[in-house]
Amino acid sequence: MHKKGSFASNDIGTPWYDIGFHFWEPMNGTLLKAVWIEFMCMVLFIYLATGTVVFGCHSDDAGTKEGSDAIPVDCLLNQSRVLTIATGFGLTIFILVYLAAGFSGGHLNPAITLAFVLTKKISILRAIGYWIVQMGGAVTGSALVYATDNRGYEAAKGAANRLIDGLPSSAGWLLECILTFVLVLVVFAATDTARAQSTAHMTVLAPLTIGFVVFADHLAAVAIDGCSINPARSFGPAVIRNDYYDLWIFFAGPLSGGLIAALVYEVTLRPSSAPLLPVD
Amino acid sequence: MHKKGSFASNDIGTPWYDIGFHFWEPMNGTLLKAVWIEFMCMVLFIYLATGTVVFGCHSDDAGTKEGSDAIPVDCLLNQSRVLTIATGFGLTIFILVYLAAGFSGGHLNPAITLAFVLTKKISILRAIGYWIVQMGGAVTGSALVYATDNRGYEAAKGAANRLIDGLPSSAGWLLECILTFVLVLVVFAATDTARAQSTAHMTVLAPLTIGFVVFADHLAAVAIDGCSINPARSFGPAVIRNDYYDLWIFFAGPLSGGLIAALVYEVTLRPSSAPLLPVD
Amino acid sequence: MHKKGSFASNDIGTPWYDIGFHFWEPMNGTLLKAVWIEFMCMVLFIYLATGTVVFGCHSDDAGTKEGSDAIPVDCLLNQSRVLTIATGFGLTIFILVYLAAGFSGGHLNPAITLAFVLTKKISILRAIGYWIVQMGGAVTGSALVYATDNRGYEAAKGAANRLIDGLPSSAGWLLECILTFVLVLVVFAATDTARAQSTAHMTVLAPLTIGFVVFADHLAAVAIDGCSINPARSFGPAVIRNDYYDLWIFFAGPLSGGLIAALVYEVTLRPSSAPLLPVD
Amino acid sequence: MHKKGSFASNDIGTPWYDIGFHFWEPMNGTLLKAVWIEFMCMVLFIYLATGTVVFGCHSDDAGTKEGSDAIPVDCLLNQSRVLTIATGFGLTIFILVYLAAGFSGGHLNPAITLAFVLTKKISILRAIGYWIVQMGGAVTGSALVYATDNRGYEAAKGAANRLIDGLPSSAGWLLECILTFVLVLVVFAATDTARAQSTAHMTVLAPLTIGFVVFADHLAAVAIDGCSINPARSFGPAVIRNDYYDLWIFFAGPLSGGLIAALVYEVTLRPSSAPLLPVD
Repeated sequence: MHKKGSFASNDIGTPWYDIGFHFWEPMNGTLLKAVWIEFMCMVLFIYLATGTVVFGCHSDDAGTKEGSDAIPVDCLLNQSRVLTIATGFGLTIFILVYLAAGFSGGHLNPAITLAFVLTKKISILRAIGYWIVQMGGAVTGSALVYATDNRGYEAAKGAANRLIDGLPSSAGWLLECILTFVLVLVVFAATDTARAQSTAHMTVLAPLTIGFVVFADHLAAVAIDGCSINPARSFGPAVIRNDYYDLWIFFAGPLSGGLIAALVYEVTLRPSSAPLLPVD
Repeated sequence: MHKKGSFASNDIGTPWYDIGFHFWEPMNGTLLKAVWIEFMCMVLFIYLATGTVVFGCHSDDAGTKEGSDAIPVDCLLNQSRVLTIATGFGLTIFILVYLAAGFSGGHLNPAITLAFVLTKKISILRAIGYWIVQMGGAVTGSALVYATDNRGYEAAKGAANRLIDGLPSSAGWLLECILTFVLVLVVFAATDTARAQSTAHMTVLAPLTIGFVVFADHLAAVAIDGCSINPARSFGPAVIRNDYYDLWIFFAGPLSGGLIAALVYEVTLRPSSAPLLPVD
Repeated sequence: MHKKGSFASNDIGTPWYDIGFHFWEPMNGTLLKAVWIEFMCMVLFIYLATGTVVFGCHSDDAGTKEGSDAIPVDCLLNQSRVLTIATGFGLTIFILVYLAAGFSGGHLNPAITLAFVLTKKISILRAIGYWIVQMGGAVTGSALVYATDNRGYEAAKGAANRLIDGLPSSAGWLLECILTFVLVLVVFAATDTARAQSTAHMTVLAPLTIGFVVFADHLAAVAIDGCSINPARSFGPAVIRNDYYDLWIFFAGPLSGGLIAALVYEVTLRPSSAPLLPVD
Repeated sequence: MHKKGSFASNDIGTPWYDIGFHFWEPMNGTLLKAVWIEFMCMVLFIYLATGTVVFGCHSDDAGTKEGSDAIPVDCLLNQSRVLTIATGFGLTIFILVYLAAGFSGGHLNPAITLAFVLTKKISILRAIGYWIVQMGGAVTGSALVYATDNRGYEAAKGAANRLIDGLPSSAGWLLECILTFVLVLVVFAATDTARAQSTAHMTVLAPLTIGFVVFADHLAAVAIDGCSINPARSFGPAVIRNDYYDLWIFFAGPLSGGLIAALVYEVTLRPSSAPLLPVD
């Protein structure tokens, strides 16, 4: 059962094996408002975060030479900008989760929505609505980045995710899987009402922590695959550029990582779950 | 009606179409104190934030060569300093909103004041007072930066906002409009008392989140237009340098973005507003 | 006595000289769950944090030149990446302490576990369990980094800790000792229930502050020894690379610093401890 | 009257003109504990923060060339390291204020102590004790930095504050005065019990905000004077290097800025103070 407008929506008392699907909920104003903010925040996320990559692609010298407008041919995955890009993604997720949490839960990521629907935290109806607007929002956001600065968009390849040369697909999958695992695990802990009651910091710091997981993930991975951990984030630039190379990795990695995290949290960590071994 | 000294000042129960103007409030000590802190914090914001741009303009080698005082001819929009500059603007807004919130609401931005007066959260009298001191404070702050380091001020063009060469005005307007839209949307969510009651993190993290929106906006835009999202911030250096080129963009973009955000929040997101569709 | 699932676990009323060992606690599901999350978070810590060092080792030009996959021969201790690496370690500890605090206390560091067992905050049984999985988790995490990117792992020497050439061992010990002293002192203050009751910020900000101590420590020390402050963090890459040179420093420094901090906090700072001088 | 162990220690109801001195308090264990932690945290502040400057002074190439130990002749005020250094100072103050607030108030700065004693928030006896250990702690901390890495200490001139060539003393004073003004103003707001009751974020975010003021101040000023805003921070390296050139600026600037901020806050902003104009 989904509690509207609530950040934490865990069902205490459900046995650990009660993982499955919850199909329906009334299609009323609350759901429509949730889908609407999920769309709007997805547009803003892609605009701000991939915008940091694209708009920053103008040459380092562009500002210091009057009249210059040099842009490097390909500024994607530029190592020296890892920290700036990671900060952009992390802060953007923080502020948008802060904004959207009370309306939609602030997923902004199909992998998180998958983890929530699998553990019956949201209905399948809601999940499908979220997935559609997350994908549509990402395409819209990337189109707006292109509309703002098409030269930078070309140079940065739209901030598309791509494995660095020489990195095998399996390594890309492993990387995206582990990084998304951390994200979904923290999201589950942050929205666990049983934990929120016992530890004061959980609820207050929730959006900041979720944003900073995205920040830390990007610090690790921007240099070798641009860091996705979010199929929609990779889908947006891929559609605008009509280039779907490597895209499957950025669906398979995050979705599998999120799924494993949901199972691990529910089975081994949820406060109400059975202890690992029934000793004593 | 404005509740003095309160961070959140939303009227719950007002129907969504009740957007308009509230003209008057007693011109007492509370209002004067609010105008006074708005002025003082605006001076400090411009001094610290544009000071980060200007004082940092001394050559990278200035410190490593004894006696050197080389300054590049134009260090404005220097790409390599994006993160430092964005951090400076973001942190400064955070600390000043923390400081001023209880006295004036901590607007520090004519676009936010416009959004608040349009939705009847503050009176027109108060808005006019804020606008005057925001503009005056920005000019004062920029003058103090010049007084501290006139060589750096020349090199950085006073940290004035300017579109990078080749970027059309319409792109600049779109960019500033969207970035200010995010800012004002978050400010409205953070000061919405109805939401504050249901989600613990809203009030406590409010100033940090508002500062970090400014941070994220600057990460995206510093490299291509210096990032304004605040007409007063652009007005200060323009007056001191007596150069008003492109200035209209930094008024039109933020003001339109703030106005749209106010409408979107009040009509579609406010907890007390009617649901999007009256289903069920 | 350890209070399960509680972030703060100080015994008020114990006289200051009551430092020693507490041997036993029931080996039930709560303890097993704590050991399990300590293992999982240690794997994730090493993967994310040392991954930031390793995955970022691909050449600065790798992204700007189509098809290039140049990696510098040795990119360990690269000064220009100090801030990125320090941010990675700091944020990772913040999010994992946020996650693990309610289950295991979120030690993730043998030096912290030593300080807790010495002051009878946890049992020796628990400490031994934590130490084993901290070491095992660090080795596992470093192996996963190698599996993801073996070329970067070679270039960065697995992000192993190493004294910069010319720095004597005694200086390395002093550095690691002082930096770990700060960390453990802050952990003790953050988990002191007597203080938590009198100051509102203590509990809410606890995981953020602990993460930011790690951040600040790395800012200071990454450039000269890679910054350990955690024997397990140094142990993981050492085992995978089978290179134990200098490793003793990263055991001796952190463990002695943590031990001294525990004594200093319990004897001179704990609210319930006797005043420094029995005046008045 | 000082309330022991309390972060906020403002006297509500005192008329605004009641500025002066409060001479005495019992010299008991609480005061001794406060002086002790003020000393210890000052040592740690200087070690961590100026250590970030000094230990980072090893050449950018030191890590990438086996056996290299090149250090630039003078790496003080190196522009490219502004963000790293500012982060170091900001985070260190945050964590130490978090730690020390409940014991001593966490001044760690003679300018803050001056502002507190002038407004009768602490006794003259306590202020003198704090000033002595702040100065002594800074010297001790700087000596420990020298002991750890004397080569880096030479290269960075011990992270001493110094005006960049060409900057007049008056500009240095203006800069330090304004930056310290912001710091003390925020400290007064953060410790104002009357405000803490009306706005939830004030108390919880207090140490973070104070740390981030120091962060923002350093972002602005590191490149042109190394940023002091703290006479003790400048005093430590000056004593160890036996070089007192420019030191008077780093006493005059911060002390005057702190003093003005105390007056401005007490006279114009304190909630209990008379309104600016007695209208209505």
